[in-house]
Amino acid sequence: MEHILDLSAREMAARLGRRDLSAEAVVRASLERIAELDVRIHAWQHVDPDAAIARARALDAGKVTGALHGVPIGVKDLMDTADMPTTYGSPIYAGHRPTLDAAAVALARSAGAIVVGKTVTTEFATFQPGPTCNPRALANAPCTPGGSSSGSAAAVAAGMVPLAFGTQTAGSIIRPAAYCGVVGYKPTHATLPLAGIKPLSPSLDTVGVLARRVDDAALFIGTLARNASIVDACGAASGSLRIGICRTPHWARASTDARAAIDTAAQSLAQLGATVQDFALPTACDALTEAQMDIMAFEALAAFAPEATGSSALFSAAFVRQLEAGRAVTGERFQAALATAELARMALAAALASFDAIIAPSAEGEAPAGLEATGDPIFCRMWTLLGTPCVHVPTGTGASGMPVGVTVTGPRHEDARVLAVAHRLQVALAGSSA
Amino acid sequence: MEHILDLSAREMAARLGRRDLSAEAVVRASLERIAELDVRIHAWQHVDPDAAIARARALDAGKVTGALHGVPIGVKDLMDTADMPTTYGSPIYAGHRPTLDAAAVALARSAGAIVVGKTVTTEFATFQPGPTCNPRALANAPCTPGGSSSGSAAAVAAGMVPLAFGTQTAGSIIRPAAYCGVVGYKPTHATLPLAGIKPLSPSLDTVGVLARRVDDAALFIGTLARNASIVDACGAASGSLRIGICRTPHWARASTDARAAIDTAAQSLAQLGATVQDFALPTACDALTEAQMDIMAFEALAAFAPEATGSSALFSAAFVRQLEAGRAVTGERFQAALATAELARMALAAALASFDAIIAPSAEGEAPAGLEATGDPIFCRMWTLLGTPCVHVPTGTGASGMPVGVTVTGPRHEDARVLAVAHRLQVALAGSSA
Repeated sequence: MEHILDLSAREMAARLGRRDLSAEAVVRASLERIAELDVRIHAWQHVDPDAAIARARALDAGKVTGALHGVPIGVKDLMDTADMPTTYGSPIYAGHRPTLDAAAVALARSAGAIVVGKTVTTEFATFQPGPTCNPRALANAPCTPGGSSSGSAAAVAAGMVPLAFGTQTAGSIIRPAAYCGVVGYKPTHATLPLAGIKPLSPSLDTVGVLARRVDDAALFIGTLARNASIVDACGAASGSLRIGICRTPHWARASTDARAAIDTAAQSLAQLGATVQDFALPTACDALTEAQMDIMAFEALAAFAPEATGSSALFSAAFVRQLEAGRAVTGERFQAALATAELARMALAAALASFDAIIAPSAEGEAPAGLEATGDPIFCRMWTLLGTPCVHVPTGTGASGMPVGVTVTGPRHEDARVLAVAHRLQVALAGSSA
Repeated sequence: MEHILDLSAREMAARLGRRDLSAEAVVRASLERIAELDVRIHAWQHVDPDAAIARARALDAGKVTGALHGVPIGVKDLMDTADMPTTYGSPIYAGHRPTLDAAAVALARSAGAIVVGKTVTTEFATFQPGPTCNPRALANAPCTPGGSSSGSAAAVAAGMVPLAFGTQTAGSIIRPAAYCGVVGYKPTHATLPLAGIKPLSPSLDTVGVLARRVDDAALFIGTLARNASIVDACGAASGSLRIGICRTPHWARASTDARAAIDTAAQSLAQLGATVQDFALPTACDALTEAQMDIMAFEALAAFAPEATGSSALFSAAFVRQLEAGRAVTGERFQAALATAELARMALAAALASFDAIIAPSAEGEAPAGLEATGDPIFCRMWTLLGTPCVHVPTGTGASGMPVGVTVTGPRHEDARVLAVAHRLQVALAGSSA
């Protein structure tokens, strides 16, 4: 029999909107799945069953006003919630209770979404892992879920919720999506508000979502962004596609699995009638990864000046190293990195004119074994700095049976075009594996 | 006799660093001036004399470690302070006590600056005024100090502190600087961290400073930004300058006073040997003011979603109108406005290649009479969206004897170049009026 949590978020929202399904039933299913699985997966930092059920009952008793009416979601614990503790993944903030929701959380709630709880983030969205296990790995051979949106990716992969907020500064949505085998969607930079989200590097920080399906990701972000073209991006099949394959300056670090994922995606798109050809990055994009690292390091050092004054003893060694990296970046080097990015954005926009979208590696390969580290965001840093919309689409599994996939990206502000390609790819892959 | 508060911040910091002056003496002078004048000016939302004196004594007793050692500053009440209430100019936050300093405040403190208190901001840095009076106006004919950095501009103009933080989203540093007859410096967007500052529109929000002198503004921002080229920008006189006069698309709204200020600045620079010629904005810059208004309205509506849920009864009518304007801007229109700005930045960068800097109006004219409104940021919006470094330099007075001046601006990331021109202009004007 069909399980409630197998429904897409769109179908769930549609049935909830028609009252064919009660919000309470959906939330109870979500809470049961969490109770059953989270003792092993540790996706959640905090769950509030009573509040979620109370909110579901209130929605069931009231009018349907929002496009996400009754849909249960997870909120990355980097984002403030007025009714739940918010730790930012750091012992400095154990038990911290913000006075307000993050703006993006408030937008989700006003669209009818029910916050089931807070999902585990790495420390301040950087590299010190939380306890989350990758749901796709065997219990006796644990793998990282990636990070920093570790809990959100794991919760969605385990079917606990259909949607969960993520944020990305280097590769914190796309990489965990890749490792956990779910969709990750990082919209164009600045699409959603950052108010109430612990700042790491505002020139890069971007709010997005983890989902099982591209069209669900589009529904969620498009609703919060008041952008109908994003909500509807996956609806109408467009004509024949022109797709570029971008191997990036880091292709040497792509494993056989990562390269095979690109081939799988390219073949699948070609079978849809797409013209697929190599896409050469403009030379203005050569130094973006280094520029991203400089900007992140400089801005993180500045943003954490208050904690560094009084609470630095509670920083992890990994976080101290991140701040130390910032000390080596002067203000002049930071400005030069920002200028590099601006030139690269223009060059890329021109180069992309003859493509609908491009595909690129999301990660070096399958999730690394163990829980001591969250993997390397090497393939994501440049796109985050470019600020382009990125969608991770799972393509299958690698040599160890763990998920792999590709990033679909394209011009800034052209999220709808990128989502449409990602959706067609996901549907085509589902068809070919069925 | 020379008064301590007549010293430039640079000279003050130098004497403090040599122990020729005690921090306690400086802070006491600042507090005395505030006690004397603020009953009329209302620049300060909160002053903490005991804490400032205690901090001064601690600095006097310890080592000199920072470039701002012992310099008293004002902090706009939009910025969090852990030891003082922070209202963001709204009754919603009466008595609010943040747990942490804003990152920029922490950076200033770690450079040795002493926070004397919090300066008045308009409500959430928008258009509902606080009680601040323009110090340059007669008591029986009050004029607005401009906004939103109302208290910071007034405090610096009244000689209470040599430096005060401002922030700008539309024209909130440059306009009050113009109305109060002081220097305002808005660095290139993203130069300083926004963490702990109430977000209004992060694509625009920029931290800067109000000061009496351009070289003091450069010292302050350059120190916090760890950017030696900014700190030293005003040191070496450069060669002959190429200056453009940019009348902007809003020239028809420039009063006789504003036009005369441009002429004064142009003549002064020409007397320095500068080549001064008209600068025609690229057509890609035509719609920037409208784009800035769309972006600010859209992002403000999103950022204040949490307050809108529970506390909207405490919004002013003016703030409600600002949010209403956001409702009219769809996500698509917001993205189009961001894209407009990106193209304009590139076009401007190319057009500026043959100029050291350009001068443009800072405001329509003198400060409007009365305290009911803070004037129009019409001449500032486009530069804020372009993210270029802007320095307001006072040039003299208008028909009513109130201050007027000009904006000096130039390419993004070229703050040092713009500051050097602004400094030479200020020095030249001081010489010609002496």
